[in-house]
Amino acid sequence: MKQIVIEKSVLESNDKRAALNRTLFKTQKTFTINLLGSPGSGKTSILENIISLLSVKYHLAIIEGDLYTAKDADRIARYNTNVVQVNTGGACHLDASMIDKALLYINTLDLDLLIIENIGNLVCPASYDLGEDMKIVVMSVTEGNDKPLKYPSMFQRSSVVILNKMDMLSLTDFNTEEFHQDIYSLNETIKVFEVSCQDASGINNLIDFLMLAIKNKKDL
Amino acid sequence: MKQIVIEKSVLESNDKRAALNRTLFKTQKTFTINLLGSPGSGKTSILENIISLLSVKYHLAIIEGDLYTAKDADRIARYNTNVVQVNTGGACHLDASMIDKALLYINTLDLDLLIIENIGNLVCPASYDLGEDMKIVVMSVTEGNDKPLKYPSMFQRSSVVILNKMDMLSLTDFNTEEFHQDIYSLNETIKVFEVSCQDASGINNLIDFLMLAIKNKKDL
Repeated sequence: MKQIVIEKSVLESNDKRAALNRTLFKTQKTFTINLLGSPGSGKTSILENIISLLSVKYHLAIIEGDLYTAKDADRIARYNTNVVQVNTGGACHLDASMIDKALLYINTLDLDLLIIENIGNLVCPASYDLGEDMKIVVMSVTEGNDKPLKYPSMFQRSSVVILNKMDMLSLTDFNTEEFHQDIYSLNETIKVFEVSCQDASGINNLIDFLMLAIKNKKDL
Repeated sequence: MKQIVIEKSVLESNDKRAALNRTLFKTQKTFTINLLGSPGSGKTSILENIISLLSVKYHLAIIEGDLYTAKDADRIARYNTNVVQVNTGGACHLDASMIDKALLYINTLDLDLLIIENIGNLVCPASYDLGEDMKIVVMSVTEGNDKPLKYPSMFQRSSVVILNKMDMLSLTDFNTEEFHQDIYSLNETIKVFEVSCQDASGINNLIDFLMLAIKNKKDL
């Protein structure tokens, strides 16, 4: 019982910090994504695709969450994009105050798109609002189609699911029909993009969607 | 700072409960495994293989951890094995008191092998001792070979890593050499089993290892 109360107060203070982040993103008209998913679902590969296709047209910045390493930030830095590494020192999720600190190192003036890659974890990161416009969850067909019902909060709170590694679909027992049924039973309005970072299939649809979201944020 | 103190006291009380579980398993000479890994790494498939090959010879019981569903327990129940479902109600890991409660439903007399399938998560479950003899972490080649360094505690605290989905290796950029280097840099004594649940390759080695572990526990 004691533990539950503590958890509540942690989440409440996180929500206050997230609201301040959200106000900043609103003022600066920066569309902000909280990118979520299991370890190895392909978050960083998706990010690499987005950066190479959008950085010619927009100002982008990336916040890379990781327990201890800078492995993903190193991958992203190759694209000559503004990237800040946040090491959680073992914590299994990013929280709003970590984003607040990371923003000190990012020029948010004229920033069109900020993507925050969260820790690979389908549980806790769903509970911590970072002030983002949208949660996007990446899952790969190799993980199996039972994951939405097993980790419902993540899929209920996300606006988009990127179903990755579609090139491997025929090698798995992933049931696409069941997946769609489950995902819409949890979240009627969730948008699904089926993609492969190997052959770039489906990436263009995702990019079009993001471009529209950036435009809508500017027009607000 | 406040949060860290709380976490410590939670872990301390967990460790006390885990010690009691461990005493029970020692008295009953039950070899106990804490089975860990990302969502979709293949923990339940590995478990299905172990059950079909070992249940003819040994008394087995399974504790299935899940946030809300009984999906994995339903899969396991088909094998006519003693299985208890523990729903954590959203918590991202099992703890020792949950195991204590589950044990009320298991006949531990003459129980040779107890396998506890933890929540799919490479972070928090590593910190919670359940009283097990051995942590075994399942990871799949489709997750990428950078995972040990990104989630070091999990690999430092596990005695065995089961590298799963080896049948898909050629379709990924998984670097086996780097993987082995990284894993032994974190944990010199960790044992690696490369397996595929699709073609059953490597499963026999794993089974031999488990049979020896069960025997050693009996002989203690």
